Amino acid sequence: MTEHVRAAIVGSTGYGGVELIRVLLGHPAVTITSVISSSSAGAPISEGFPHLNSIMHDSLDAVDVPLIASKADVVFLATPAGVAAKLAPQMLDAGLKVIDLSGDFRLKTPEIYTQWYKREGASQEDLDKAVFGLCEIYGEQVPGKEFISNPGCYPTATLLGLVPAVKAGWIDPSTIIVDAKSGISGGGRGLGLGFHYAEANENFSAYKLNRHQHIPEIEQVLSDAAGREVIITFSTHLVPMTRGIMATCYAQLNGKHDTREFIEMYRNFYEGRRFVRIREEGKWPATKEVWGSNYCDIGFAVDERTNRVTVVSVIDNVMKGAAGQAVQNLNLMLGWDETTGLQLTPVYP
Amino acid sequence: MTEHVRAAIVGSTGYGGVELIRVLLGHPAVTITSVISSSSAGAPISEGFPHLNSIMHDSLDAVDVPLIASKADVVFLATPAGVAAKLAPQMLDAGLKVIDLSGDFRLKTPEIYTQWYKREGASQEDLDKAVFGLCEIYGEQVPGKEFISNPGCYPTATLLGLVPAVKAGWIDPSTIIVDAKSGISGGGRGLGLGFHYAEANENFSAYKLNRHQHIPEIEQVLSDAAGREVIITFSTHLVPMTRGIMATCYAQLNGKHDTREFIEMYRNFYEGRRFVRIREEGKWPATKEVWGSNYCDIGFAVDERTNRVTVVSVIDNVMKGAAGQAVQNLNLMLGWDETTGLQLTPVYP
Amino acid sequence: MTEHVRAAIVGSTGYGGVELIRVLLGHPAVTITSVISSSSAGAPISEGFPHLNSIMHDSLDAVDVPLIASKADVVFLATPAGVAAKLAPQMLDAGLKVIDLSGDFRLKTPEIYTQWYKREGASQEDLDKAVFGLCEIYGEQVPGKEFISNPGCYPTATLLGLVPAVKAGWIDPSTIIVDAKSGISGGGRGLGLGFHYAEANENFSAYKLNRHQHIPEIEQVLSDAAGREVIITFSTHLVPMTRGIMATCYAQLNGKHDTREFIEMYRNFYEGRRFVRIREEGKWPATKEVWGSNYCDIGFAVDERTNRVTVVSVIDNVMKGAAGQAVQNLNLMLGWDETTGLQLTPVYP
Amino acid sequence: MTEHVRAAIVGSTGYGGVELIRVLLGHPAVTITSVISSSSAGAPISEGFPHLNSIMHDSLDAVDVPLIASKADVVFLATPAGVAAKLAPQMLDAGLKVIDLSGDFRLKTPEIYTQWYKREGASQEDLDKAVFGLCEIYGEQVPGKEFISNPGCYPTATLLGLVPAVKAGWIDPSTIIVDAKSGISGGGRGLGLGFHYAEANENFSAYKLNRHQHIPEIEQVLSDAAGREVIITFSTHLVPMTRGIMATCYAQLNGKHDTREFIEMYRNFYEGRRFVRIREEGKWPATKEVWGSNYCDIGFAVDERTNRVTVVSVIDNVMKGAAGQAVQNLNLMLGWDETTGLQLTPVYP
Repeated sequence: MTEHVRAAIVGSTGYGGVELIRVLLGHPAVTITSVISSSSAGAPISEGFPHLNSIMHDSLDAVDVPLIASKADVVFLATPAGVAAKLAPQMLDAGLKVIDLSGDFRLKTPEIYTQWYKREGASQEDLDKAVFGLCEIYGEQVPGKEFISNPGCYPTATLLGLVPAVKAGWIDPSTIIVDAKSGISGGGRGLGLGFHYAEANENFSAYKLNRHQHIPEIEQVLSDAAGREVIITFSTHLVPMTRGIMATCYAQLNGKHDTREFIEMYRNFYEGRRFVRIREEGKWPATKEVWGSNYCDIGFAVDERTNRVTVVSVIDNVMKGAAGQAVQNLNLMLGWDETTGLQLTPVYP
Repeated sequence: MTEHVRAAIVGSTGYGGVELIRVLLGHPAVTITSVISSSSAGAPISEGFPHLNSIMHDSLDAVDVPLIASKADVVFLATPAGVAAKLAPQMLDAGLKVIDLSGDFRLKTPEIYTQWYKREGASQEDLDKAVFGLCEIYGEQVPGKEFISNPGCYPTATLLGLVPAVKAGWIDPSTIIVDAKSGISGGGRGLGLGFHYAEANENFSAYKLNRHQHIPEIEQVLSDAAGREVIITFSTHLVPMTRGIMATCYAQLNGKHDTREFIEMYRNFYEGRRFVRIREEGKWPATKEVWGSNYCDIGFAVDERTNRVTVVSVIDNVMKGAAGQAVQNLNLMLGWDETTGLQLTPVYP
Repeated sequence: MTEHVRAAIVGSTGYGGVELIRVLLGHPAVTITSVISSSSAGAPISEGFPHLNSIMHDSLDAVDVPLIASKADVVFLATPAGVAAKLAPQMLDAGLKVIDLSGDFRLKTPEIYTQWYKREGASQEDLDKAVFGLCEIYGEQVPGKEFISNPGCYPTATLLGLVPAVKAGWIDPSTIIVDAKSGISGGGRGLGLGFHYAEANENFSAYKLNRHQHIPEIEQVLSDAAGREVIITFSTHLVPMTRGIMATCYAQLNGKHDTREFIEMYRNFYEGRRFVRIREEGKWPATKEVWGSNYCDIGFAVDERTNRVTVVSVIDNVMKGAAGQAVQNLNLMLGWDETTGLQLTPVYP
Repeated sequence: MTEHVRAAIVGSTGYGGVELIRVLLGHPAVTITSVISSSSAGAPISEGFPHLNSIMHDSLDAVDVPLIASKADVVFLATPAGVAAKLAPQMLDAGLKVIDLSGDFRLKTPEIYTQWYKREGASQEDLDKAVFGLCEIYGEQVPGKEFISNPGCYPTATLLGLVPAVKAGWIDPSTIIVDAKSGISGGGRGLGLGFHYAEANENFSAYKLNRHQHIPEIEQVLSDAAGREVIITFSTHLVPMTRGIMATCYAQLNGKHDTREFIEMYRNFYEGRRFVRIREEGKWPATKEVWGSNYCDIGFAVDERTNRVTVVSVIDNVMKGAAGQAVQNLNLMLGWDETTGLQLTPVYP
């Protein structure tokens, strides 16, 4: 690893952005050369994030594409929906490598984007430029690319849990039901009554049933894996915790496969992929076991009584669901070992 | 309501028992005459529960059936699995009315009990004496009875959410999947690493997938409602909160019914039942909205894309899932209004 | 209790207001006849507070003094700083009894109010009309009065913990240091980054050291108790929980008094006052032990090594620190038993 | 840094031990060669700590001093009180460097140890061998030593907050009052009702007032700094969070010093010490701002009205209060930069 890469982060004052800072500060081959925020430009980043005191002295830059291009080789976009659609093409034109953490380039057509995000999105031409960076599934497409669309948090947990079974033909894709749960940080740092501590604490709630904008992203990949259109039932819930996602996935089996066979098949599927860990029979992962790390842990329960499988998949939504996987994509883009700078042990307890 | 009832509580030092104390202290026609604990007999109850200081001065009694029969008219058994199987028959023989909050008398045969609870249970003869007190479903069987088996917390949330749809024939019972989540108090006051604050906090975990002892209780009632054997997929998860259960229930529709039709049908089904509240279209209940109360709140989402319904049902596991419903059963047994002493507004925030 | 009182609540969509609703719904001699909100007038209250579904069907009224006076006998003002200063005099003129939960009438002069609240306040004439309703200290001034200023949450916990010792001359008032901690609901339902779940969870923070607007309210009462001006050091902290305040109070002893003597003296001082509970030697109260109730629990530790006493005082900030004490004041105003409608057992766990 | 050190950890299944594993796995010059547990020897460490799956495959070793000496150069003792008193001398004799995280070697005489820990402790001779490794205060004594006693969590937060002011003579040591608050992990992984989630959640409690065994450790260092015996008032509280300690420290000023002067004086005192960060005027640190890191953040409020200073000091109890400082001591012992392997950005949010 002789080269050293200069990185800029747009949206540094969101949770994805500030986690990128944490990860990249520990990355041996990356230097953060610009932290960017349209809303807080000019202020020291440590003003809004006192945990960065004495660690990062930089003031926030405004969004200025030529300036970014002069300071950085790669730019991470950790911006709200709609921003990257405009920024990413300019940045690519300016010669930057781009990793977009938003949903703006994840769907294959503008129509589907508009249908689910309820807004205008990127053009078909721009969408076609992006590689969907779900590393353990599409990672081989990433090396050498200029533009990666980083998957969503719910899709990452769900798809790593389901794609091997769908590809193997072990489950009937038309029966897939995903019951997903997320910590509150998944909603971002913006204010809202639902994120008020006194409302969210000691509370478990359901939201956006069958309407979450991550649904088409999941269906797109499952359809690709199944070789035919897959439509799923997908529920999202808020858990009174800061970080963590669990996707509990249900499907009817094609034929008979017991839990051990699932474990073995998945271990084979993910062989050599350090960030997926398959649990033993009778054990299921908990979100805390991946907290602060880039792991996705998966466990299984086949129920012979109903001939269904339950797949439990957990990630840290801010890491493998956002900043961690973005850095994993950076590593893959540049031909580095995908774990570079990401060998972070989960923080426990 | 001219009569005044004397109540004893066995297992007063567990969470179900101590909540019974809270509810019965506010009941206009009940006096608690004995709080009983096999493990702490002789100590003042406020020693282990300082919140009862100056409210309840009683010392805990030992388990002594004749003594209880001399002091009380009705006894609540809030005891660990296996205890009520032995105690309840003695208490009935001594002339006490019995409301059992444990699982010992919920299943119809000793064989099913042993299969799921992994222990010997009550005899068939004793099982036959108990009425399963899921008030909004079997409430008409309760008045005048001597022996009520109070439903489990997961079954209460799940069944109130599913029975109307099953009875109406609107869903295919063979496709039912229940993804259930519970606060930590559901595990009781006993110690265990999984309940250690530092392990459970900021953590969401799955446990006992397809193996929870509440499964046969749910299937028994659903089979009764469907008129044929129903087998379900049932997952349980721990939420980092003290109280609350959500059952997110999935099923394939028979025919076409939209969310509004579900709402209307359920409102009709539960007409006059004060403790079930059906949410408007596009709104789903959160556990905090029933916190500390006897309500069960239910919401729906029909997905036309998959022709499935998602039913979201929430309760406070310590109240409607245990002590609250037990008092509701007492009210029904004695011919009182079922809301007597239970008109508690949820505590918010 | 032959009379029946009609109550209106201004500020029904804040935490103090909604808790007043919970308490008054259970009060045997009060009927809520109007719930009022300037921001949400016209909407059903259950829209913003789904836990009130089927319990309270009322729509929110606008602030209209003649209308309120026609519907109610007493009005509770649970409004932000500055609102009651204007509303209360109009309401008194309209013949309403007024209980103000805000800080607008707690301080004895407009100057002190302006100094600490950084805004114009009520006139001296209006301030003089209000009785400071710290029930266990000034309760004898309340019966028959028309206008009560309900104490703040921090002052209630602190003063019930310190006044007896100051009055007895057992501690040197010039040495008082109060280290106070509050759950997040103390900050109200308004949005702010510090109340965002992801920021407040798993976090303990200090704020407004020596600058909190409750300081002059505490000093005013302590000065009254001491018979000379008392100035204190007062720190406030945010605890990652919804409800509860603990004031840990320190002072140098005058002479020698051990923990047992403190316990006995306080028990005498508060004899007959049902809402103050004094802990045994070696035991200190926890906030959860008063959760959802109107109790103030107090414990002591005299340290012979330093000749200081530590007084630990806890309340539920929404109850004894706001709505509960307001209803206690209503009871006292009208000559009822102060516990009427307030005999709520703390919710545990 | 040419050498590479082999480390063993006794007590690997406690929170201090498992955090040592996390930190040392990221240390560039240390290899963990043995993880040791008397209670779980033979089991893979990932069995009890699934977050270590695929990261650490080792089975737990039993406590066998010659074996440890053959495998390791340095041993960390993260053991309950009383264990290190016996083990440390044997390990030193076997040629191991020893860093003890327990309280067994922190106090200067066996008498004081017995008085506060209520048990027999190490001999005077053994006590004399240990260096008290409060790095920012006594760090210059550590290089080249064989045996370090790692400070307690409460003492670390408290002393880093108070020593500069005491040394400077700016505060009167006889007036020091410390109000300390800790997350639940401070109590260790052992089971206890007070650590049960349903009891500790939504609860703030006081414990061991003036009796905590960390008091003599604090007084010892403050006395050393003051040049005369210092006795303090010290209170400990449990916060419903997993990690974090805040010490809010109060003292009367000698003379006049405003907040800015305190800030400047402390910045000078800690110049060059990377792990102490002094906040700006009007800002105080929150525990979350050091979460998962080795920082100690300190803020000040001088109150001119009372001529007292309030010093707010926060650490992560598992890091700077245990494992992090232990590794910092290792670095100092071996002459390495004290930040080696410890440049961990706090995890936020």
